[in-house]
Amino acid sequence: MKHFFNSTEPFPLECGETLPAVTVAYHTYGMLNEKRDNVIWVMHGLTANSDVADWWPGTVGEGLFLDPNKYFIVCANMLGSCYGTTGPSSINPASGNPWCDDFPKVTIRDMVHAHQLLAEHLGISKIHEMIGVSLGGFQAIEWMVTDPDIAENVMFCATDSSCSPWLAAFNQSMYMAIKTDPTWGEPRLDAAKDGLATARSIALISYRGPFAYNMSQRDSEDKEDPFFHRVQTYQEYQGKKLCDRFDVYSYVRICQSGDSHDVGRRRGGIKDALSRIKANTLVVGISSDILFPPECLRQLADNIPGSRFEVMDSNFAHDGFLIEHKQLNEIMKRWRRQRNFEC
Amino acid sequence: MKHFFNSTEPFPLECGETLPAVTVAYHTYGMLNEKRDNVIWVMHGLTANSDVADWWPGTVGEGLFLDPNKYFIVCANMLGSCYGTTGPSSINPASGNPWCDDFPKVTIRDMVHAHQLLAEHLGISKIHEMIGVSLGGFQAIEWMVTDPDIAENVMFCATDSSCSPWLAAFNQSMYMAIKTDPTWGEPRLDAAKDGLATARSIALISYRGPFAYNMSQRDSEDKEDPFFHRVQTYQEYQGKKLCDRFDVYSYVRICQSGDSHDVGRRRGGIKDALSRIKANTLVVGISSDILFPPECLRQLADNIPGSRFEVMDSNFAHDGFLIEHKQLNEIMKRWRRQRNFEC
Repeated sequence: MKHFFNSTEPFPLECGETLPAVTVAYHTYGMLNEKRDNVIWVMHGLTANSDVADWWPGTVGEGLFLDPNKYFIVCANMLGSCYGTTGPSSINPASGNPWCDDFPKVTIRDMVHAHQLLAEHLGISKIHEMIGVSLGGFQAIEWMVTDPDIAENVMFCATDSSCSPWLAAFNQSMYMAIKTDPTWGEPRLDAAKDGLATARSIALISYRGPFAYNMSQRDSEDKEDPFFHRVQTYQEYQGKKLCDRFDVYSYVRICQSGDSHDVGRRRGGIKDALSRIKANTLVVGISSDILFPPECLRQLADNIPGSRFEVMDSNFAHDGFLIEHKQLNEIMKRWRRQRNFEC
Repeated sequence: MKHFFNSTEPFPLECGETLPAVTVAYHTYGMLNEKRDNVIWVMHGLTANSDVADWWPGTVGEGLFLDPNKYFIVCANMLGSCYGTTGPSSINPASGNPWCDDFPKVTIRDMVHAHQLLAEHLGISKIHEMIGVSLGGFQAIEWMVTDPDIAENVMFCATDSSCSPWLAAFNQSMYMAIKTDPTWGEPRLDAAKDGLATARSIALISYRGPFAYNMSQRDSEDKEDPFFHRVQTYQEYQGKKLCDRFDVYSYVRICQSGDSHDVGRRRGGIKDALSRIKANTLVVGISSDILFPPECLRQLADNIPGSRFEVMDSNFAHDGFLIEHKQLNEIMKRWRRQRNFEC
């Protein structure tokens, strides 16, 4: 079920600006038990939303690792997004129009701050299990470092403790594509759609990797036009598809929040920061992920005391976390059994 | 030394159009011996030129595998490029202006056709050793299949027997970026420079891979702006740098020729085509190459009778072939010794 939490207090941002108020859109599944100790908090990736059951097939349901019969599952849309939480597509009270490019830059820490307000509002002082994937993992890591007592158990999947130069290079290519669009900067939510479509095309490359493309987009041997590849129309189509559900300003602000990610910033570096994590931690990499190669996840795990590291075997690269739900269910259940904390 | 060969005959293209004439720019190093059996023919990559000694450091010189004291080394600029061979930046005799986007699409087979005319002009009917890297490898493979007797020995490095969906997805993202530039299509060679810069930024990602970026572009821990990464300025800088030496129309036509690459097209498929190759063949992959993963090179080698397959160990991904010249020299010399064909 989708809910909205309105925090009417001014919301200060790391960049120095202050949002006059913040709305957080969130979904819940299942019921909070009396002891309030059955909370699973899920953090979603870049263009997803708070409806986990929608964007993460095969994970929410009876017998699956997000089982609403056992758990009270919360997923909040991230700050800066366009799925209900305050972001560039929200109305700027000062102008009465959508913020668009006037929306301030937000960091992963700002996003976590919004989650914290929601948790407080829901009366949740302890999370049984926190799950963060991809950019949601950035937030989960950040939250666990800033408040090590918030969760007992935490799972980070296909993510990193900081924005690598490699990820920043993808982001920069997307900004360059977007800013080449002559309608970039115009104060309307349908600006720079061609630029946004190109950015999505670039992002997909980073999510899929060579094996997934070569498996799923192979051309027929009898194609007529030697210059044509079906993947050309696929990239165009996926670009347009994102444009139907996302605006360029939200997209850019979220990517920029990714740039800001560095759990070690003003904390004496990444190692020191990660050593604060006290929760039972599971780190899951995906064998063919080129965006967050498994080596990076191993490094993340190495820096978290007592953590467990697993690699999902998949040809689907970063997108593997959306596809390999069977493996994911097994990994999660095995971890819970071994840690003996199934509630 | 740089030379130009002018073929005044009409030059028919696979697409059905005909170029009124063709100029091929080429470099030679060393002397053709009396037996005319000391020719090494090198085929360059996307944005390189005919001056091998310039773009391939550590390979041309005494004691190196391209030794002008022993060999007569030829490298020709590819059709469609802007380094002297006929392409979009050449003058269209019908208009008196550069062809720009009116230049017809050329295929890898058309490029090979231009090489064949040059070889004929130089009186070379047998190449001792053919070397093709990256897009140059596309041409080398194509030439060996279309004329299996042309070379005795051939080395394909960081390349493929066809344009994979994965490569086509990168190309498509670049086309989308370029076509978003409002000056794309204008009949001037400095059109769509912002689009071209973005395309270069995308291409670099494919050439470098995660390890090279994360090694060379690591940010200092005390950077002030959390949204800033030095790789952002690096991508911008590299984009602009390409714009200083390349025009967008040549860039697009060459990428499209890459799209056209399929050595099996109208030849009963890739396996049948590759089985025609009779030369001693060495196939070299680069361990961290994400554009042409070593598995693809192994497959290429598997389909060429009696070929030898090697992997260069490098963190520099596709660009490894430009950087790992020591390994490359060793691999080439070992191969020559083992095949006993050092001349």
